Amino acid sequence: MRTVFWEDDKVKMIDQRLLPGEFVIAEFETVEGVARSINEMYVRGAPAIGATGAFGMALAAQNSPAIDRNSLLADLAAAKELLDAARPTAVNLTWGTRRLLELAERTLLPELDDIRSALLAEAQALADEDVEINRRMGFNGAAVIPEGANLLHHCNTGALAAVDFGTALGVAFACQEQGKPIHVWVDETRPRLQGARLTAWELMRAEIPMHLIADNAAGHLMRTGKVDVVIFGADRVAANGDAANKIGTYKLAVVARENGIPVYCVAPTSTVDLNLAHGDLIPIEERGAEEVTGIGEKLIAPEGVPVYNPAFDVTPHRYLTGIVTEEGICYPPFTKSLAEAVGKAQARVEENRKARG
Amino acid sequence: MRTVFWEDDKVKMIDQRLLPGEFVIAEFETVEGVARSINEMYVRGAPAIGATGAFGMALAAQNSPAIDRNSLLADLAAAKELLDAARPTAVNLTWGTRRLLELAERTLLPELDDIRSALLAEAQALADEDVEINRRMGFNGAAVIPEGANLLHHCNTGALAAVDFGTALGVAFACQEQGKPIHVWVDETRPRLQGARLTAWELMRAEIPMHLIADNAAGHLMRTGKVDVVIFGADRVAANGDAANKIGTYKLAVVARENGIPVYCVAPTSTVDLNLAHGDLIPIEERGAEEVTGIGEKLIAPEGVPVYNPAFDVTPHRYLTGIVTEEGICYPPFTKSLAEAVGKAQARVEENRKARG
Repeated sequence: MRTVFWEDDKVKMIDQRLLPGEFVIAEFETVEGVARSINEMYVRGAPAIGATGAFGMALAAQNSPAIDRNSLLADLAAAKELLDAARPTAVNLTWGTRRLLELAERTLLPELDDIRSALLAEAQALADEDVEINRRMGFNGAAVIPEGANLLHHCNTGALAAVDFGTALGVAFACQEQGKPIHVWVDETRPRLQGARLTAWELMRAEIPMHLIADNAAGHLMRTGKVDVVIFGADRVAANGDAANKIGTYKLAVVARENGIPVYCVAPTSTVDLNLAHGDLIPIEERGAEEVTGIGEKLIAPEGVPVYNPAFDVTPHRYLTGIVTEEGICYPPFTKSLAEAVGKAQARVEENRKARG
Repeated sequence: MRTVFWEDDKVKMIDQRLLPGEFVIAEFETVEGVARSINEMYVRGAPAIGATGAFGMALAAQNSPAIDRNSLLADLAAAKELLDAARPTAVNLTWGTRRLLELAERTLLPELDDIRSALLAEAQALADEDVEINRRMGFNGAAVIPEGANLLHHCNTGALAAVDFGTALGVAFACQEQGKPIHVWVDETRPRLQGARLTAWELMRAEIPMHLIADNAAGHLMRTGKVDVVIFGADRVAANGDAANKIGTYKLAVVARENGIPVYCVAPTSTVDLNLAHGDLIPIEERGAEEVTGIGEKLIAPEGVPVYNPAFDVTPHRYLTGIVTEEGICYPPFTKSLAEAVGKAQARVEENRKARG
């Protein structure tokens, strides 16, 4: 089961808003629908929305009534703009849509329907690569996890955050495949509770030992020696290693360093944005008050209360022990190690594309 | 309106579990009921449960069928044990019940009904003193708040956490009385949401500018220069200044220090436990899983998920800029400054008792 996939000429995905209560597959036949699925968080997680963006572009090509190449490219450019605007922080979204648009721009295929097919094949390849990348990244990370370690994990970075397997939580899955015992402290991750709803659900299904905690409890656990490694994903990593991730990550990283606990950000090279020199250039999405004032229909704060709800924060690179990518673990100085990892990954994509013909 | 009070031979209190949705006054006619009101958090906040414990002792005296002094003392000792067990972390509870029991033990009044009246008068005096103490403490704290400051506040420490006025939030009320403009970032304070439910409600009623935030957003605000002072209360302060407070306080204090932001713990001397050398000796209450897995009836995590739910954490004294008490602001070395403040406060209680006759 994949988080997002193509079937019957539609983009289909697990509606993650309903988990763990209900397991529903949502279907989208239009680019507008796919953009909405990202904005309303049917699907979330940087790699997963990267793949969703790519499938959205394939859908745009399929639905385009264009009868010449330029009209098709114009429709694809419009679709890219619509999709990219759905969420501003995760760079994987624009990475996925750009990869599809660039293919359309440079292809030598003369027939529009062949271009449409090539775009769908590229989106499929991107999704398949995501799974393979995540597995490599997970095992890269598992190498630094001691036997019997207590991991502390923020948000959801499991199979649901990617096409499959996951990023930071993939490290836990890799430990399990290796037969290495671990235990995971699961931050519930307010306001949207991705930890309580999604990570807890994934770990329980996988039968990996875990405890759910309020985010506020993480400091107490670290100070009292109950955490060995802190792991989380990222929505965008700047060239210098500063990492934007789900709100609350920065606090965790600071408190971990204060307690001498290693901190690993686990993110594929598609999450690295070499165009941004540092993290304060990363746009931080602000979301609606209702995410904080209510749980579902239930109001948990006074009506009309003013709310500030940033969805991400930036963890400066000095708090990171390493950044785990599919090309290995990057260590400081990150400006050098990240650029090398991105270069290796790009070469690999090119090779794969040639291998597919 | 007081948070807890004596009326018609009963202990009455605002049922804080129902705020902000409903405003209900709960009534208790038995010591068992009062102990339950503390354990189930009808009433919470260190000073408020101190006063509730004292009223519980007065109720025990009133309800005791004793016809001799020794039986009355035995009933009071049993009541103290029951009340003290209701919540382990806040020292104010045992402070309040001990003050009443000691009065009963040393009084020279020959008539049991006179002892009963004296105990009720002592509980009333303790409640009245609490309000007066909080006002002094609030203005002591206000002296270090700059004009236009952005305060970051955790949990609820307002009128609802005390008999009236409050501790850390009392500092905000004192600023307002002085006409000093401030703005408060209100941590929602998972898992029980005392910030979202109670602090937001109190500040909105007082028309003090505020924004509610997820606890996870506090670090982002501090790192991006939007917080000038961090303030919170305490449930118990050890002799060296280590402070136990609502879970999540430790993380805040660490991140504040990392960003050069002053951190004030605001707590009356009744919260200081000179018998404990340091904070790791403070018992930390663990509460039920349902506080984390649900909001009211609504389940927000997979059924049967394992949970770890400590209600408090300890902030080592090195993260505190100062501890604001009713006897002034204590600065490092806290072992000296706290002992002095406690001494002054005890002398003041004795004077007041003599003044009452």
